[in-house]
Amino acid sequence: MRYIVGVDIGGTNVVVGTVAADGSSLHGHRTEPTHLSGGPGGTVDQVNRLVQETLIAARDELGAGIEVVGIGIGCPGPLDTQSGIVLMTPNLGWIEMPLRDRVATAAGLPCTLDNDANCAVLGEWWRGAAQGGRVVVGLTIGTGIGGGILIDGKIFHGASDVAGEIGHASIDQSGRQCKCGNYGCLEAYASGPAIARRAVEGLAAGADSRLTEYVHGDLAAITARTVSQAARDGDSFCLEVIRETAHYLGGAVANLLNIFNPDVVVICGGVTLAGDYLFDPLCNQVRRRAFRPAVVACRIVPGSLPGTAGVFGAVASYQEQTGALD
Amino acid sequence: MRYIVGVDIGGTNVVVGTVAADGSSLHGHRTEPTHLSGGPGGTVDQVNRLVQETLIAARDELGAGIEVVGIGIGCPGPLDTQSGIVLMTPNLGWIEMPLRDRVATAAGLPCTLDNDANCAVLGEWWRGAAQGGRVVVGLTIGTGIGGGILIDGKIFHGASDVAGEIGHASIDQSGRQCKCGNYGCLEAYASGPAIARRAVEGLAAGADSRLTEYVHGDLAAITARTVSQAARDGDSFCLEVIRETAHYLGGAVANLLNIFNPDVVVICGGVTLAGDYLFDPLCNQVRRRAFRPAVVACRIVPGSLPGTAGVFGAVASYQEQTGALD
Repeated sequence: MRYIVGVDIGGTNVVVGTVAADGSSLHGHRTEPTHLSGGPGGTVDQVNRLVQETLIAARDELGAGIEVVGIGIGCPGPLDTQSGIVLMTPNLGWIEMPLRDRVATAAGLPCTLDNDANCAVLGEWWRGAAQGGRVVVGLTIGTGIGGGILIDGKIFHGASDVAGEIGHASIDQSGRQCKCGNYGCLEAYASGPAIARRAVEGLAAGADSRLTEYVHGDLAAITARTVSQAARDGDSFCLEVIRETAHYLGGAVANLLNIFNPDVVVICGGVTLAGDYLFDPLCNQVRRRAFRPAVVACRIVPGSLPGTAGVFGAVASYQEQTGALD
Repeated sequence: MRYIVGVDIGGTNVVVGTVAADGSSLHGHRTEPTHLSGGPGGTVDQVNRLVQETLIAARDELGAGIEVVGIGIGCPGPLDTQSGIVLMTPNLGWIEMPLRDRVATAAGLPCTLDNDANCAVLGEWWRGAAQGGRVVVGLTIGTGIGGGILIDGKIFHGASDVAGEIGHASIDQSGRQCKCGNYGCLEAYASGPAIARRAVEGLAAGADSRLTEYVHGDLAAITARTVSQAARDGDSFCLEVIRETAHYLGGAVANLLNIFNPDVVVICGGVTLAGDYLFDPLCNQVRRRAFRPAVVACRIVPGSLPGTAGVFGAVASYQEQTGALD
């Protein structure tokens, strides 16, 4: 069995793991908060150290002689997959960072680069909830909302590696301004911080809720995860915030069904902890809004690889880009 | 040279022509108002007659011995391209119509079926304004708004032949109700009848405009074409209606750029007669709303084959489906 290292770089965490080429096992799994204080080079050094750590752990577990063939990296964009350069990542302070070659040189292994959301969706297709899908659209709901499109198991990159920015499709042309400059982007309504912000707005307006108990009275500590948790515990205000989120997401997913006609839509991120409280009204919205033959053809599922979809996907992307799957 | 008959069936017109296999020439071009009064079979009979007429005209022109290899049909959906059946077309009164085989039997020629908007976009890619595009998104603005997606010159059908229904992606989840049941569909704002309706609404509200002169006072005769014509003639109210249309279309096109990252967006239909009055504010909207690398990668153009894009595209679809291009 050959092995490939997967690296998932985010603004919050860096996750690495050593994955069997057939995706059957993950070894030396490490998650660490992203080092942002050391400047652009500091984060690269952290990635290089974590690559060494996962390899040592994997060799301890599997034997020193295992064949490690390369490294796949998933990273926020925009980036140029061909040249392996991260063009600009505000959260990481990277501008024109030749990440692929820096990591390849440090490890002495071939390396590939792809968008983090694309990798998460590819990971869910390869080993998770989107298995078997031929046309897959995925959403990753976190600090932002990323997206990825797969056609026959290949990431669809578009003309210049931008394709899949589903979080920045507007659901209301005159709606909330988004950080990207556009108005009404899905991200401005349904990202983790947007969900938390809508909850805080509701509390500030006098909503009756036990949500404040979950954060010991510190409203700034409210996240989509705490809102989801309180909803699961039956807090009616938080249930309404989740239903509203489902309404926004359901409308956006309905658009994707009419545009793309996928057979799987996979939704990843902490908000999926809300489970049926999110997915039931979301699917209702989709059924009410999308064309029936598109609804019938599609299953809408939560991701099943929380925390590791990006690592598995980076490994799958490595194999796709290097032709190892052909 | 081999020839293929292209048929473009719409709720308003049926267009046919006999096209050289390399798309270099069109012969026996016929456009006729769609026969709707004779029931479902009446329209099929009309199509079969027009196929005979274009073949006779083409043979008169080119010689009786020309080799005609097949017929490509474009038709409103939803339809099943594999079985050649039109599932339901309210405008034509067809339900479960085995159109492909009816036409093939009548003509004694192999026949293929595809969505009319897909065919129009494919026609613009093959012989019109979208030539050279690798990722092409097209909009056909008429009675409704159709769409088509091409990847590497192939129509992207999605999981169940629904893909490309861009007119039914919502630009405002709480907006105008669309005939499809969804709210805020682009079609409800920017289709031909929607443009005319917004103009009539403005006139009813007392707008100062010479538009009524174009229809001799008959507001019911106002169409997107008359609005575009009056705008070109300098009518400031109609210019505002066109600018508003551009705003809606530009927001929708910006979404498509962020989702798909196409290198060409082609917009077809009578409203494109407004020319720069439409395209300048439309492109401004796109630049303001979409990601810069997506904007840079994309040209946004009006279709260059008005009236015949669907015929050329039906012929290209025939060749794609039968493998004649491989």
